[in-house]
Amino acid sequence: MRDGMLVIGTRRYSSWSLRGWLAVRLAGLDVREQLIPLADNGQTAAIATLSPNGKVPYLEHNGIAVWESLALCEYCAEQAPGLWPADARARAYARSIASEMHAGFRALRQAMPMNTGRDNRPLAGGTTPDIDADITRIDAIWTEARLDFGKGGDFLFGAEFGMADAMFAPIVSRFLSYGVSPSAPAQAYMAAVRAHPLVAQWYAQAADEPVAWQQSRFEDIA
Amino acid sequence: MRDGMLVIGTRRYSSWSLRGWLAVRLAGLDVREQLIPLADNGQTAAIATLSPNGKVPYLEHNGIAVWESLALCEYCAEQAPGLWPADARARAYARSIASEMHAGFRALRQAMPMNTGRDNRPLAGGTTPDIDADITRIDAIWTEARLDFGKGGDFLFGAEFGMADAMFAPIVSRFLSYGVSPSAPAQAYMAAVRAHPLVAQWYAQAADEPVAWQQSRFEDIA
Repeated sequence: MRDGMLVIGTRRYSSWSLRGWLAVRLAGLDVREQLIPLADNGQTAAIATLSPNGKVPYLEHNGIAVWESLALCEYCAEQAPGLWPADARARAYARSIASEMHAGFRALRQAMPMNTGRDNRPLAGGTTPDIDADITRIDAIWTEARLDFGKGGDFLFGAEFGMADAMFAPIVSRFLSYGVSPSAPAQAYMAAVRAHPLVAQWYAQAADEPVAWQQSRFEDIA
Repeated sequence: MRDGMLVIGTRRYSSWSLRGWLAVRLAGLDVREQLIPLADNGQTAAIATLSPNGKVPYLEHNGIAVWESLALCEYCAEQAPGLWPADARARAYARSIASEMHAGFRALRQAMPMNTGRDNRPLAGGTTPDIDADITRIDAIWTEARLDFGKGGDFLFGAEFGMADAMFAPIVSRFLSYGVSPSAPAQAYMAAVRAHPLVAQWYAQAADEPVAWQQSRFEDIA
């Protein structure tokens, strides 16, 4: 008998699932994973029957329901202290950029959906000023966080991969997929995130998903 | 010498400023308010020079920088425990709906911008299915939270106005402005939020703002 379940979507595409899954795994929660393949039309009815907001990720843990990636991060950080930075100034920065990620960067997110099976293939039509502005801001966040708080470690707030890294991991995936080349420090960060054992595990599991789950609405974008 | 500053936009329109301001006031932080009137074209250059993400609200408190409403809520809740529910299940619910608010309800937000000077005047063109879906979901959140956790109090989690209420206060304002009539329990909640002393203070201060700050891009929508 495990402590609950985490509902996620298709690993290849579901960037929000990756965030929630990372939070749950970082906190070491013992929950089973229930994967619901995303429907090709974007309306996955099975998710609506499970999750209050009709979206993944959705967590039930010891009778407690949690939805929305950022709320999962906060819940998991309560279970396993240390996933937000201990220093108050760093923690405020981490939560500010995590919230910025949660609600922002829409131009980038819409133009470059996560697709772990796509590697280094730029958008055929090139980027727009809005996409470029998102890339510039993300580069600045990564670079500034690591300069101010990273203490020379691989991740945003040091040697340990934490909640802020979980929130930005799908952006790393997108940058790698669409051949986005930010500054050298940002590229070093991207390599570290991609090589993290949990991220590597997600990619490996995504690669094992049935070909039938691949969707024109994601794969056609080129 | 006070402990810092809170940067907000025009009170009449800036729904995110209201959220951050409520969080700061609920926590009792002693910061001066710096109001930057929103520019009519939506690009307020003065904010970009102050705030890392170029948006309001932005808080500096005892040398710590915080931006994004939800991060302000978390920061302020650390300063004044009790602003999230003490019960773990209620707290997870509160953070889930706060995150849902932070990133969601875009159809409603775009069609019905906050305007504290507009009262009970429905959208001239009526609502769309997307707007109706947002209204239905918000009604369900308010009703369910108060049934499950509200203990008969006026607010989402009981007798005290907390962080989840701060996140939804601008939605209450919009519903009142555009004559949205949710269920009776939701309407009772709206009345309680509107009558809360901090919300009443915000409305009063907004009413005192110069007429010159009124903007066609908000006022023309009818």
